[in-house]
Amino acid sequence: MLKKPRLFTAGPTPLHPEAIRAAAGPVPYHRTPEFEARFDRVQTGLRAAFRTQGPVAVLTTSGTGAMEAALASLFAFDDRVVVVAGGKFGARWGEIGTAYGLDVVEMTIEPGQPVTPAEVATLVERSAPVRGLFLTASETSTGTIYDVRAIADAVRDVEPGIVTVVDAITSVGALPIATDDWGLDAVVGGAQKAFMVPPGLAFVACSPRGWELVGNESATPRYYLDLRKYAASAKKSQTPFTPGIGLLLALEAALDAIDEVGGIGVLEDNADRLATACRAAAAALDLELLSAAPSPAVTAIKAPVPGTGPEIVAAMLDRHGAQLSAGQGELKPHIFRIGHIGYVDDLDLLGVLGALEGVLADRGHAVTAGAGVAAAAASLAAARAQEGSSG
Amino acid sequence: MLKKPRLFTAGPTPLHPEAIRAAAGPVPYHRTPEFEARFDRVQTGLRAAFRTQGPVAVLTTSGTGAMEAALASLFAFDDRVVVVAGGKFGARWGEIGTAYGLDVVEMTIEPGQPVTPAEVATLVERSAPVRGLFLTASETSTGTIYDVRAIADAVRDVEPGIVTVVDAITSVGALPIATDDWGLDAVVGGAQKAFMVPPGLAFVACSPRGWELVGNESATPRYYLDLRKYAASAKKSQTPFTPGIGLLLALEAALDAIDEVGGIGVLEDNADRLATACRAAAAALDLELLSAAPSPAVTAIKAPVPGTGPEIVAAMLDRHGAQLSAGQGELKPHIFRIGHIGYVDDLDLLGVLGALEGVLADRGHAVTAGAGVAAAAASLAAARAQEGSSG
Repeated sequence: MLKKPRLFTAGPTPLHPEAIRAAAGPVPYHRTPEFEARFDRVQTGLRAAFRTQGPVAVLTTSGTGAMEAALASLFAFDDRVVVVAGGKFGARWGEIGTAYGLDVVEMTIEPGQPVTPAEVATLVERSAPVRGLFLTASETSTGTIYDVRAIADAVRDVEPGIVTVVDAITSVGALPIATDDWGLDAVVGGAQKAFMVPPGLAFVACSPRGWELVGNESATPRYYLDLRKYAASAKKSQTPFTPGIGLLLALEAALDAIDEVGGIGVLEDNADRLATACRAAAAALDLELLSAAPSPAVTAIKAPVPGTGPEIVAAMLDRHGAQLSAGQGELKPHIFRIGHIGYVDDLDLLGVLGALEGVLADRGHAVTAGAGVAAAAASLAAARAQEGSSG
Repeated sequence: MLKKPRLFTAGPTPLHPEAIRAAAGPVPYHRTPEFEARFDRVQTGLRAAFRTQGPVAVLTTSGTGAMEAALASLFAFDDRVVVVAGGKFGARWGEIGTAYGLDVVEMTIEPGQPVTPAEVATLVERSAPVRGLFLTASETSTGTIYDVRAIADAVRDVEPGIVTVVDAITSVGALPIATDDWGLDAVVGGAQKAFMVPPGLAFVACSPRGWELVGNESATPRYYLDLRKYAASAKKSQTPFTPGIGLLLALEAALDAIDEVGGIGVLEDNADRLATACRAAAAALDLELLSAAPSPAVTAIKAPVPGTGPEIVAAMLDRHGAQLSAGQGELKPHIFRIGHIGYVDDLDLLGVLGALEGVLADRGHAVTAGAGVAAAAASLAAARAQEGSSG
């Protein structure tokens, strides 16, 4: 039998065909007016995606490189910062901060559990003076969203000058992130998520105040990851170092494709629609979500029998060519995750759910065959009706 | 929302990624030893697909061009031939025959109905002397298979020297076609079907006797479509005219991919598995098949309300980006067709069925949501179990 390799992970995600085509073409030299026009077009698309007026730094790194660039460009040795860590990626802020000698106060949240803005504000108040706050908009390891807008607002009530930095790597394009309006001093994104582009590029957007802070003198050692260089180059429609040119052309094509379907909001709605349908299917199949505040980017589902998550992931890959994500760290044995950001559509979701039903049934999980697919289809139909009536 | 464009037609079919990659590369010059080695590799793959020892003519034409090449190379003005026409493509043999001045006796079968070998033999006997017999292994317009092996055998009992020509364009790779063993004098195929390659190449395989007959002098005017030229060139690992070189490289890549999954038999089993599952879904959804002898290449389903086939096809495309086929000719209003040859897998089928359920329900067709997907999944699971126990 044939099995098409399909990604249902939260990154890398399925590539947009136009991005593939662009990346497969010849690579032009980048110190030319033609490249600069294309870089400007990429800036326009990224500004829309991050809802910001300023430049968006385009780094040739993974998402972690851009996280580090934001931290190194905004903080210095001994700065006290609060890190809200809901999982592996939240904890990474703490790891990078420690590597740079920051005084990290980590707030560890039980995987999948929400945190109230008041709880974070209280911790910041108790830890005063605190210079920085590190958040994760969607924690990929647990499929959980945190209301970064409300948390940032509540924290500013107790520490008005605090510098807020958000990991939105899996969030941009999956849920609205308003860098400027929400006063987020730095927001980090990555090409391999909702942007439908291969890994290798990462982004940092800053609020006007964020860019001001970046411009201040600081003793933190940095060079490749110095955001000042990226802002200065962006003014000249350039990058400070040779960028992943092919990836940038792929990103340009993907941003065109996003505009063609109606903009970043359509992409966010698409992820939300698919996530809602995926949760409806999970409920219909008597499956429990890990998260009390599930993310539109990725749905984390508890294995019906604890400890069997990796076996479900393996069976989906082996039998159907469908690559889901297992859990990470301590969660690894107990959950599996279905990503639905970027270039994913109804047929993808209905197909993977149809396959999942069979894999679970074979493992003794009693479900009515077709119930998950039917629930997802009904959810998608309801979203279509809503869109039709509001559009 | 995002909608990926997906082909569920019986041709063109979804392309294999390796075929796309090969076709997207630079085109080499073809009168070189390197090209000849690649052409030989293509010949090896095509011989396996057509189950023949002789050369397989590779024409740069659509399938119809290869049908005409077979007819023009084997028949002459005034030859009496019997054409078994179960639909649009069967009837095409009669049209080409008439264009070449053959004396065509057409046996028109009600769409979707089978024909017995005895019925064809009786017609040949009554029409004696008959020089040729034209068959269609799978009639794409109605989704019906005809047992060409049994028909050819029965006809040879009454007309031993008859020249048998088979349109297997949608059949090769979807059901076994044994050119040599079944004594088929010419068998026609096309790249854009189970071969997972873009349209533009077509094939003619001949039994040893077929090639002998092709070599005979004949007054039929032909040049580009003269199979003698293709056989002579194939001996030198070449084509007589500049071929679609990019398509040939795509075909080479696709044939490698077919070998990698285990050969043409695996591709045939895959189509059969998906067709069986598709029929199970139709039954569970109270949908009637058009055909009494349904094809593994394409399933023709009657619209629940006569006359609404094109609306179902339009809704699937508009809502989900899934391109099904409508009917053709008189059948156009009343059926829709789902292709499942070539690069199609379980998730494709489960997804398109999940979407179809919703489209039908919205049109007032009462079905249990999920029932079609569940029936297809159960059918695929049964096939997997069988394969496991026999493999």
